[in-house]
Amino acid sequence: VRISELSRVSGVPLATVKFYLRDGLLPPGERTGPNQASYGPAHLRRLRLVRALVEVGGVSIAQVRKVLTAVEDESLDRHDMLGTVQDTLAGAEPRTDPDWQVARADVDAFIAARGWHVRAAAPARDRLTEILVALRATLADPEHGPDPTAEELFGHYLPAIEEIAASEIAHLPGPDAPRAVLAEATVMGIALFGPAVKTLLTLAQENASARRFRTISEPSQKSRTVGFPTPEA
Amino acid sequence: VRISELSRVSGVPLATVKFYLRDGLLPPGERTGPNQASYGPAHLRRLRLVRALVEVGGVSIAQVRKVLTAVEDESLDRHDMLGTVQDTLAGAEPRTDPDWQVARADVDAFIAARGWHVRAAAPARDRLTEILVALRATLADPEHGPDPTAEELFGHYLPAIEEIAASEIAHLPGPDAPRAVLAEATVMGIALFGPAVKTLLTLAQENASARRFRTISEPSQKSRTVGFPTPEA
Repeated sequence: VRISELSRVSGVPLATVKFYLRDGLLPPGERTGPNQASYGPAHLRRLRLVRALVEVGGVSIAQVRKVLTAVEDESLDRHDMLGTVQDTLAGAEPRTDPDWQVARADVDAFIAARGWHVRAAAPARDRLTEILVALRATLADPEHGPDPTAEELFGHYLPAIEEIAASEIAHLPGPDAPRAVLAEATVMGIALFGPAVKTLLTLAQENASARRFRTISEPSQKSRTVGFPTPEA
Repeated sequence: VRISELSRVSGVPLATVKFYLRDGLLPPGERTGPNQASYGPAHLRRLRLVRALVEVGGVSIAQVRKVLTAVEDESLDRHDMLGTVQDTLAGAEPRTDPDWQVARADVDAFIAARGWHVRAAAPARDRLTEILVALRATLADPEHGPDPTAEELFGHYLPAIEEIAASEIAHLPGPDAPRAVLAEATVMGIALFGPAVKTLLTLAQENASARRFRTISEPSQKSRTVGFPTPEA
């Protein structure tokens, strides 16, 4: 189809489609005349992917370019492609101060104790270290003994987290799926299901808070409501 | 203590401390002279909180101000304070197009079916709608029937998500804790444990991917490694 039709079907404004084309985020169409090109289903899929990353995933154009490079690099097997996408979206700068070094060693020990297979250089290790340092600094209390460990702060999350991750990876297409399909499922999984989990957690926290801090009985099958009740408690 | 000491103990540069003071993110110290003020443990705690939000949580200064206003508003009970903090950090703009309306109705039905107590106006509903619209647009496939529902895409996450949320809320200080302590625990919980869950999930995904796409046996108690092995598979 022509570029105007691609814009119409995808719902992406024509100027944005042209911007993605100029920027190489969308591969060029097939030339059909001196000033015309034709676009197919692969263009539509790619356009939707780029738009989802930028508009919903909050991914920068520079990051999208890196992600797409990994997706198109046929020398990467599925596991390495997933790792490259994760690294691009994780982003944290390692530091050299003593607090950081101590926390990083704790994070490494925490991951090792769980038996997880995670590259020593995975940026997510630095990101978790960053969060641990901040939590320790904020929770620091000279009267209450030593700093909390990664195991103390994060250990209780692990069974649920492993369940979610295993389910996500199991949902990815099998080895027979075309590479492009698997690549897109991987990118979507990391860029959109990540925010989805965070948002579901926000909703579940509100529910758990209502149940702890307000007097609300368990919902019966009959009286489920969407709105938030205003109990007398 | 004096402002220079506050900077030293917290590790926050003096210029940043002064900026937070001018900006009202840090309450003024007690005047001890024409050009001097004294700061106590509450200032140190607040300084660490602001820094963690901005540097690790990626929260904007404007959002921090809103969060602190909720924290200091004594008319809010614990549940409403948690809700206000969540709303400030959730952020999504509702839209009026038909795709959005359909998806939003699906999200509402999904939450209602689970029996969750979530305000009808909670921004997290809009955020989940935004993600659902993006997933539907990207996964759209005319040959494979109707759009996936929220239940189909997100339902499998719910048991683990409920477990995490219940555990987090249970970890908050009880009704006897001073309001400031509870407020800080709530803000930290949402601003830092949220990213922690996302990061733990990234690590767990890498592990699950290694186990699915590479040939790795279950770790024995003896041979746990931090680094990523390079299997022959």
